[in-house]
Amino acid sequence: MNKWHLIPLLALMSFANYSVAQTKTDTQRTTIEARNDLFKESNYLQYKTWEQTKQSEPLEDALAEDPNLVILWAAYPFSKDYNKPRGHFYAITDVRQTLRTGTPKTDTDGPLPMACWSCKSPDVGREILTGGEDAYFTGMWSKGGAKIVNPIGCGDCHDTASKDFKEGKPALALSKPHVGRGMDAIHKSFNEGSRIDQQSQVCGQCHVEYYFSGPTKAVKFPWDKGTTAEQMEDYYDEIGFSDWTHGLSKAPLLKAQHPEYETWRNGVHGKNNVSCVDCHMPKVTDTQTGKVYTDHKIGNPFEQFDAGCKSCHAQTKEGLQEIVASRKIQINDVKLRVERQLVHAHFEAKAAWDAGATAEEMQDILQDIRHSQWRWDYSIASHGIHAHAPDVALATLGTALDKAADARAKLVRLLAKKGITTEIALPDISTKDKAQAAIGLDMPTLKAQKDEFIKTMLPKWDAEAKENNLLSK
Amino acid sequence: MNKWHLIPLLALMSFANYSVAQTKTDTQRTTIEARNDLFKESNYLQYKTWEQTKQSEPLEDALAEDPNLVILWAAYPFSKDYNKPRGHFYAITDVRQTLRTGTPKTDTDGPLPMACWSCKSPDVGREILTGGEDAYFTGMWSKGGAKIVNPIGCGDCHDTASKDFKEGKPALALSKPHVGRGMDAIHKSFNEGSRIDQQSQVCGQCHVEYYFSGPTKAVKFPWDKGTTAEQMEDYYDEIGFSDWTHGLSKAPLLKAQHPEYETWRNGVHGKNNVSCVDCHMPKVTDTQTGKVYTDHKIGNPFEQFDAGCKSCHAQTKEGLQEIVASRKIQINDVKLRVERQLVHAHFEAKAAWDAGATAEEMQDILQDIRHSQWRWDYSIASHGIHAHAPDVALATLGTALDKAADARAKLVRLLAKKGITTEIALPDISTKDKAQAAIGLDMPTLKAQKDEFIKTMLPKWDAEAKENNLLSK
Repeated sequence: MNKWHLIPLLALMSFANYSVAQTKTDTQRTTIEARNDLFKESNYLQYKTWEQTKQSEPLEDALAEDPNLVILWAAYPFSKDYNKPRGHFYAITDVRQTLRTGTPKTDTDGPLPMACWSCKSPDVGREILTGGEDAYFTGMWSKGGAKIVNPIGCGDCHDTASKDFKEGKPALALSKPHVGRGMDAIHKSFNEGSRIDQQSQVCGQCHVEYYFSGPTKAVKFPWDKGTTAEQMEDYYDEIGFSDWTHGLSKAPLLKAQHPEYETWRNGVHGKNNVSCVDCHMPKVTDTQTGKVYTDHKIGNPFEQFDAGCKSCHAQTKEGLQEIVASRKIQINDVKLRVERQLVHAHFEAKAAWDAGATAEEMQDILQDIRHSQWRWDYSIASHGIHAHAPDVALATLGTALDKAADARAKLVRLLAKKGITTEIALPDISTKDKAQAAIGLDMPTLKAQKDEFIKTMLPKWDAEAKENNLLSK
Repeated sequence: MNKWHLIPLLALMSFANYSVAQTKTDTQRTTIEARNDLFKESNYLQYKTWEQTKQSEPLEDALAEDPNLVILWAAYPFSKDYNKPRGHFYAITDVRQTLRTGTPKTDTDGPLPMACWSCKSPDVGREILTGGEDAYFTGMWSKGGAKIVNPIGCGDCHDTASKDFKEGKPALALSKPHVGRGMDAIHKSFNEGSRIDQQSQVCGQCHVEYYFSGPTKAVKFPWDKGTTAEQMEDYYDEIGFSDWTHGLSKAPLLKAQHPEYETWRNGVHGKNNVSCVDCHMPKVTDTQTGKVYTDHKIGNPFEQFDAGCKSCHAQTKEGLQEIVASRKIQINDVKLRVERQLVHAHFEAKAAWDAGATAEEMQDILQDIRHSQWRWDYSIASHGIHAHAPDVALATLGTALDKAADARAKLVRLLAKKGITTEIALPDISTKDKAQAAIGLDMPTLKAQKDEFIKTMLPKWDAEAKENNLLSK
């Protein structure tokens, strides 16, 4: 446990090298207030629309909709549970309730590290600002249960303590040092950016690809070589990083999070300097007071077509919706094709291992699977890519298919060398339940344990947070 | 030779069922004048700009730029010679000089049928109008050498004999009945179309996918099921059509021509009702007379950015060029990936045949190769698809990769069953010359024969055309 003694020192060093303050435009960021309701009065219209993000659709089960995902993520928590995203208002609720975060009973229980809170709450910025990065990241997710309690809100993107903010200006600010370092790596330092740059960068604090790096499992953006799928893949390959080893193929895989900032900037909207805010948070007029304000109900831009899309797009709302819908269909078709090839590849790789293939024989193949699946995930994990950057998705999915084709040709050849020349049959994976059974998940037990956790653990966290005056009312 | 007696009757029937006149908006089309220079005075500005299509770049050798093409088209004339397109002015010159049309010495010499003239000249419309479709299409390409002599021009798209045209109106008209039938098949009858529809349809007389159908090898558009790659593939599969049998794999392949009309209408420009003319033939003002006219120098729209692109695109010229260029790079990357997989598949299929594979064992595999190569060709044979409809290209190339992956997994398995578990090595195909040697083409002989043909046959054709007063001066 020697390294624990070093943490305060390391935290200090890291903080000195890259403090939150360095990512601010004007003054030092002195404090981060995470209780969103404290801004309800001073920023009524913004608060009201932010609060409307609770009007999300009910949770949509992505695994039920596409059971291939269960196979592709075998032995990774996403194979247990993966719902489509909901509004910012649900950030804490949803991360607490997903099976992915497990059922930790103590501060040191797994399966996930503290890093998993990092995009969920302005409490994170406060914790880092007050205690340093290493102190925040060190430890398991359960450690933060009673501290990280308010959903993504004001303090994540605004320096609410600044003079500017109090005078009614946006006072955009980053709330986490790792974001600043990421932006610096791609030569888009926050401090030097235009307002349009900064408007996308505050979203890019979370809507990005990241990984857990070093002994503290701290969040890092893999952008040192750039933000395309290939550049990040090169980066990960060079540092020998993988998120997990696949349950069937044993391939050292990468899980793409939600690289929206990356695909946006590589795609048509980013290339045309259209920021996230231009479409998702347009300026609107309050019907009662006539005040113009920025809509904080971040969601589908078609809900604000006139204030958003129409600034650039000459089509009618219906015309543009039809085009966006057609691109969703195109992307979905190619996505499913990659998935089918990869599902086969994972089972074929398992069959090759079972038939006595050696690590040396498998190495190239597993690398092809790794690259294919990464590119697939990069293309489709991004919410709304069919609208943001459809060409990026389609081009990247094309490269994923190419890598999958390579993997499969090599696999079939290797299987033949091991005496297997018949096709490797797939189990029935036609539903989420069947696919989860095929990879050996005991879902009833997992769900029962989670229900118990929700019933017993969450009230304790909330009570402790309330006692410490951390909660919004 | 019995069926020859039927031709006048068949021609009459076919003409009665679908005459050129039926594809006109107002009056009957009574005659087609193919000598473009006769309109030089009456339509000076249009003629002058049409004539500027001679300012094309020198011929660019697509096979030298990408030797994979030689392999993909093995045993098909395109493997001998394929240049990137030049301006309309060169339509006759280029079709006469390409190695693809061979060196016919008599009216009945091959290799190509009359249909190969059909997009090259307004002489074609005149021949069909005066003699009927069957009389025109029957016979080999060489039959038309002295009759089809004026390059794509006025009469191809305008009813130059009409009152409207003489009064200075465009009088847009189709010049070939098979085009009208194609448009009818997709419920876009020329007569019922808006002016915008018709503006694209006159281009769609030639910038389309077509094949040679029936005993006369007449041009037909494969649009009965629609104009996507998949719909045309279904059509071709159902009628059991193939353009040729591949020289290595023996796959029954389809050669996509230049399906611009199809990819345009399925892509973003077509969906937004932007016609070919809007970008490639904008209205411009003559600096000397102040007259507004339609620019007939059809080429790169960026040359007329202000009059064309800018009507819809808010970007700067450089900004838009950068986006279009980035899409060309994306498409080219995926295109090369499909080609690599298909080149391997063709050689692997050859190896399977050589190892004793049966037609039954090969059937599925050859179908996968057929579908993959068709989809690849559909995506990239279209000039300018990176500007017209990049998403269509990328999505379709994705499906091509999927089919190629299937073909290769099956091929490697079949090879193993025949005792071959080593990788099938490719010959050196790193240059056009090496690739052509690899498929057994004797290029020096082919070129010498063509030179002789150009020297001896073309002057004869021109002399005969002059004698019959068919040539522009």
